[in-house]
Amino acid sequence: MDRLDQEINRLTASEAGARLRRGDVTAEALARACLSRISSRDADVRAWSYINHDAVIREARELDKRPYGGPLHGIPFGVKDIFNTADMPTQHNSPIYAGAQPNTDAAAVGALRAAGALILGKTDTTEFAGTGRLAATRNPHDLSRTPGGSSSGSAAAVADCHVPLALGTQTGGSLIRPGSYCGVYAMKPTWNAVSAEGVKLGSTTLDTVGWYGRSVADLALVADAFALEDDAPTDFTSLEGARIAIDATPQTVEDCSSDALANMVRRLKMAGAHIVPLELSEIMAPLQGMWEIVARLEGRAAFLNLARLHPHTLHKEFVDRVNNVAGFSRANLIDAYDAAARARMQFDRTAREFDAVLTLSAPGEAPQARTQGDNTLNRDWTLLHVPCINIPVTLGPNRMPIGLTLTGQRYSDRHLLTVAAAMAALEPPG
Amino acid sequence: MDRLDQEINRLTASEAGARLRRGDVTAEALARACLSRISSRDADVRAWSYINHDAVIREARELDKRPYGGPLHGIPFGVKDIFNTADMPTQHNSPIYAGAQPNTDAAAVGALRAAGALILGKTDTTEFAGTGRLAATRNPHDLSRTPGGSSSGSAAAVADCHVPLALGTQTGGSLIRPGSYCGVYAMKPTWNAVSAEGVKLGSTTLDTVGWYGRSVADLALVADAFALEDDAPTDFTSLEGARIAIDATPQTVEDCSSDALANMVRRLKMAGAHIVPLELSEIMAPLQGMWEIVARLEGRAAFLNLARLHPHTLHKEFVDRVNNVAGFSRANLIDAYDAAARARMQFDRTAREFDAVLTLSAPGEAPQARTQGDNTLNRDWTLLHVPCINIPVTLGPNRMPIGLTLTGQRYSDRHLLTVAAAMAALEPPG
Repeated sequence: MDRLDQEINRLTASEAGARLRRGDVTAEALARACLSRISSRDADVRAWSYINHDAVIREARELDKRPYGGPLHGIPFGVKDIFNTADMPTQHNSPIYAGAQPNTDAAAVGALRAAGALILGKTDTTEFAGTGRLAATRNPHDLSRTPGGSSSGSAAAVADCHVPLALGTQTGGSLIRPGSYCGVYAMKPTWNAVSAEGVKLGSTTLDTVGWYGRSVADLALVADAFALEDDAPTDFTSLEGARIAIDATPQTVEDCSSDALANMVRRLKMAGAHIVPLELSEIMAPLQGMWEIVARLEGRAAFLNLARLHPHTLHKEFVDRVNNVAGFSRANLIDAYDAAARARMQFDRTAREFDAVLTLSAPGEAPQARTQGDNTLNRDWTLLHVPCINIPVTLGPNRMPIGLTLTGQRYSDRHLLTVAAAMAALEPPG
Repeated sequence: MDRLDQEINRLTASEAGARLRRGDVTAEALARACLSRISSRDADVRAWSYINHDAVIREARELDKRPYGGPLHGIPFGVKDIFNTADMPTQHNSPIYAGAQPNTDAAAVGALRAAGALILGKTDTTEFAGTGRLAATRNPHDLSRTPGGSSSGSAAAVADCHVPLALGTQTGGSLIRPGSYCGVYAMKPTWNAVSAEGVKLGSTTLDTVGWYGRSVADLALVADAFALEDDAPTDFTSLEGARIAIDATPQTVEDCSSDALANMVRRLKMAGAHIVPLELSEIMAPLQGMWEIVARLEGRAAFLNLARLHPHTLHKEFVDRVNNVAGFSRANLIDAYDAAARARMQFDRTAREFDAVLTLSAPGEAPQARTQGDNTLNRDWTLLHVPCINIPVTLGPNRMPIGLTLTGQRYSDRHLLTVAAAMAALEPPG
């Protein structure tokens, strides 16, 4: 393998796809470069829970034989290990599922395969994408730090150039937070815009399928494969004259995060954007505590079967949900549903007045502890069902990535991707 | 096999369970009686898409060896063929899944197995519980008539005493309507009170797991297995003095259905209930057309993978959803979500004033055509996420069953079961 082949794992999916289309590179060569990178790095990063080297090469050769099928043809994907895969174990980082091998693909995996994607392997996750066992994954920028959870392996694998793209999910902050900690682009689309069939269910109202990439263009390629559409093409063309709302709701965060936001505001202003500070307390205050209620009480039904069938191997965290140790009532749940529904209507009305709303992705750099990190800044957006895109914007005092979240009204996903691309293209701070 | 054994398939689950507990009957004998009934009837009724006679007997013997595990121990269940089952094919009445054999159980199936239930086989369904291919099932009361869809086989199997209990699902009227047409009790619990993991997803907002039985007590046994709870035990003790709202919203239905409701009102009054006619137009009018939008647009994401992977074998009905042939916008979908959320809050506030709300289950007897029947009367209740119980109340002019629906606020499932039991116990009309 020559030097070039060894480095093609660093290409974005868009760049690699252009070479694949032209025949300058094969799916096999791309897969080999990714596998080689993983071989040299994954003993440290531990992003993967399963890869079958030989099967990947076989699959890549099959894809090379087929007629070119579009921009994802032959592009290697990591898949969070709570998505069912017909040809790989799906272990959920749970002893209950150790070595378990479903024989069907999750709907999202099927849609990617239909687009010609190469499913390279399964990426580590916190137990059932919840709060039981942590992933073994380490932050590739500093192995002593967390990559964030729950989509730990997917974020780290993309950040460390093991694969250009990876699937994850978000129930609280499980896509955006690892995106910020690992310095990769992350997309949490509008709730239910992508099917969650065949993905471990934790909370029907919150669980959202999403993905990671190393460019906004790559996020858009995946959105294409999922037929993600706005009602009309966006009329956004430039940040000049764009109306960008800045979430000015008071939050307790580290200086590096608030500085990142302030710095991006300066850059946006220099690009000619109209910046409007937005106090969202009126919309968000009624959501106080509601995410927790929905996650816990929907978890009662979601984990009932495992609590009954595997009472001793299911992590206490989930058994506690089933037994409602938190002591929430069903009336609490209905109140939470209704409060969320009202807040969705209000936020959509507010967000509609702007090209995008910019807010924080995480309260600081990735912590040094064995932890998922804090999802306080993410979970209300998940409950609101709005699309969120993490944009890596700077490095903090420890040279760790810090991201910001671009959000907007439900089903403005494509528009947001366009705004995110413009924001990502801004000159770095001088 | 003596006469008694041949007839035990006619017992309710509660009755059979009492005998199993006492050791008067074995799970094997009960299973054999059910299989015998099926052998003699299913060439006509066609309720089943899969039964493995030998495997059922083996499983029953295993259950007989185990210590008694509770009221569902050894009770035979039918399972609608859109629930994954680890030991039986799951074919969805789709050529794509012909002979397909998942290797995991849907969460609901797992919870039943944990309670000791005997999964007897898979029951026929309309394609993906949607509007493609119809089930082959016929109405056991008149083979020239439909059992209703989409849970056709489950309703018919319970009605014809093939099994005492069966799982189904409702996205529009797929539990309540076949319950009414086949003359069995049906429970659609509060949305998301039972996990839909491992069930074919059609519409996240609408899909609801539910079940059939031949008594209200049997419905309650299944509710126990799913840990279905209200916040507090009901204070309902008797229909005497109970406040029952009658849905007086104008509907176009056959005389036999409106007569059935009027007749039940008379019986309730004779039992001393306070009857309050309830005009729900103010709450329901904004939902006009909304169910259709949610079902169609959520179907875009739900069937995308199959439309991409199997464009020629997926029924046009679903391909059309993916291609949005109906032409609804995402704004329509958001409006529908928000209208439904508002109506849920309003209906809960209204229903709270009563012990129950009584409404129609179907616009008449089961039609003679090859059709699922009309779900107009059911689908708004599905969208409202409220629990619904079908109570068979009378026979129509063609001696076909007619049911009524008892409903109430979200998470009043156990209370409603108690009211339903009292209503079912009323003396038949004289």
